[in-house]
Amino acid sequence: MRADSSPSGINRRVLLSSLALLPALFGAPAPAAAQTQTAQGNLLDSWNDGPAKRAILEFVRATTDQSDANFVPPEERIATFDQDGTLWVEHPIYSQVVYCLDQVPTAVEKDPELRNVEPFKTILSGNRGAIATLSLHDLEKIVVATLTGMSVDEFGAEVGKWITNAKDERWKRPYTDLIYQPMLEVMQHLRSNGFRTYIVTGGGQDFVRVYSDRTYGVPPEQVVGTAGGTKFAYHKDGTPFLTKEPKLLLNDDKAGKPEGIHLMIGRRPRAAFGNSDGDREMLEYTGAGPGARLMMLLLHDDAKREYAYGPAQGLPETKIGTFSQSLYDEAKRKNWTVISMKNDWKRVFAFEA
Amino acid sequence: MRADSSPSGINRRVLLSSLALLPALFGAPAPAAAQTQTAQGNLLDSWNDGPAKRAILEFVRATTDQSDANFVPPEERIATFDQDGTLWVEHPIYSQVVYCLDQVPTAVEKDPELRNVEPFKTILSGNRGAIATLSLHDLEKIVVATLTGMSVDEFGAEVGKWITNAKDERWKRPYTDLIYQPMLEVMQHLRSNGFRTYIVTGGGQDFVRVYSDRTYGVPPEQVVGTAGGTKFAYHKDGTPFLTKEPKLLLNDDKAGKPEGIHLMIGRRPRAAFGNSDGDREMLEYTGAGPGARLMMLLLHDDAKREYAYGPAQGLPETKIGTFSQSLYDEAKRKNWTVISMKNDWKRVFAFEA
Repeated sequence: MRADSSPSGINRRVLLSSLALLPALFGAPAPAAAQTQTAQGNLLDSWNDGPAKRAILEFVRATTDQSDANFVPPEERIATFDQDGTLWVEHPIYSQVVYCLDQVPTAVEKDPELRNVEPFKTILSGNRGAIATLSLHDLEKIVVATLTGMSVDEFGAEVGKWITNAKDERWKRPYTDLIYQPMLEVMQHLRSNGFRTYIVTGGGQDFVRVYSDRTYGVPPEQVVGTAGGTKFAYHKDGTPFLTKEPKLLLNDDKAGKPEGIHLMIGRRPRAAFGNSDGDREMLEYTGAGPGARLMMLLLHDDAKREYAYGPAQGLPETKIGTFSQSLYDEAKRKNWTVISMKNDWKRVFAFEA
Repeated sequence: MRADSSPSGINRRVLLSSLALLPALFGAPAPAAAQTQTAQGNLLDSWNDGPAKRAILEFVRATTDQSDANFVPPEERIATFDQDGTLWVEHPIYSQVVYCLDQVPTAVEKDPELRNVEPFKTILSGNRGAIATLSLHDLEKIVVATLTGMSVDEFGAEVGKWITNAKDERWKRPYTDLIYQPMLEVMQHLRSNGFRTYIVTGGGQDFVRVYSDRTYGVPPEQVVGTAGGTKFAYHKDGTPFLTKEPKLLLNDDKAGKPEGIHLMIGRRPRAAFGNSDGDREMLEYTGAGPGARLMMLLLHDDAKREYAYGPAQGLPETKIGTFSQSLYDEAKRKNWTVISMKNDWKRVFAFEA
């Protein structure tokens, strides 16, 4: 009774959570911003003094001080971070969606029949107006064609090439340059105090694992993400390999985040960081355990240095990384810390002066 | 699009891999063996000198010597261990099956209507002859009733109580006393040389995580096992909790082992230990990577101190932990090491004199 032999309809339940909003990609603003790269900061150097910085420092102090009532044994020091919008830029569209679109020519090369089939035909046309009208069902086909059907090793090699070469349209830099320096400092501060930092992302687990170590210092085994099944088989010479299957095992978003944390880690985090309604359940789950807990949400309120969106606190509406007023109110009610990008961060990216 | 909202037929694909052989439980031999517990051994103290012990020592030496061509960077030092029959006794029947049967009264207490429903009625009767005739479908109902439907925390508490109190019929000791001292020494030797030791078991992931740390020194996040989905929900007071669902995500046996390793670890192991046909694919996958690799299979050829079964090498047939001749031949062909319990182990259990 093999999981991957399921005759169920689950084949069609692909990694769509990040795709419903594809059209937004094609109205992207592209103001340029050229800055000089600086070295990685020290202890929360990129944070202004304020309640957010103080909450982090106090949490780490208390949980690592053996004489403190809030001391946490090292093995229980688990901190989870959402990726899109929490560790790196998610606007105008998730980077992995750009990857999927960029891979369409490769998918067509492997399976030339796709060339004359929708939605591949439209994507290849480059007609942005037409692309923006594609349906959810069309997008599903793109995801299946670009994220599944190849071996795990082939997929890793493709993502590795792409992540090195692809550039964001606004900053004209690799996506991995667009990580938030203040959050990197939080991860480093936690790790140097015995915490293990996990990424818990709605993005693809196999995708993020390719660059997580060199980008965030998070090894593959500490990446929990939306995950599909794989299928074990043999090459003709008897060598075994794994193929990525179009079968969803974990949709690591909203309630799927605590479910994924249980599946992949098996411990309740002590600290959790997010930025949108997709992180609500992860923070609730983290906060529901006894002892010291730290829950933080990043509010994107800085259109000048990055983007501004909510709709919490009257910020512009968005479908990518929605931070609703009800989430904001829950945060206030439960003493979660809301980080204001504008006020709490001295700088956003490492490459800033 | 939530993984747990699947309308598929997967609900019935429950954790059956360890259950097909339930009847074997009821023909168990029960010779007693009382011994004295001794302290945990040092460097492979419980191993006789021979090719198996030398293979382990040489692998660890080469992979941790920076001047050796087979040096492995610490982050890639991953070793995976099957549990049943590799780390602890699996005959006459897997311990988790005993757990499921022992939990039937609790399940009936929670849902009294089960009392008059088969197969619960038969289990409660205690009539071993009748129990031994139960069908696979009956057993599936027992698994669903005893491993799912409760919160993750309730399940952990139940397993914790059981594992402390339940005793094996032959040795009259807790199951966690029946771990193989030589394998514990291998795990310790690997860990003290920078390897992370993972359990990769066909048994239930949530089940094994309850005792893995105190029994093997393997923390919950390093247990990969057969895993079902969970469902996030709220108590009336708003506190969130996870319920164990009768939905199979990973059947961590045979091809499911490398698939589970990819899902949960995302790295190919450098060393893998098993004892049965269920471990074949894990060892093949481990061996297919470049550089130094260690693949070992434990052959149960010691009826006196433990059990003898194969049918490899003319040992008695079994349906629990089958070690086929074809697996034995593959091991020889590929230079995997077959450990003879009888010849390679000075002692089997820590409690032996």
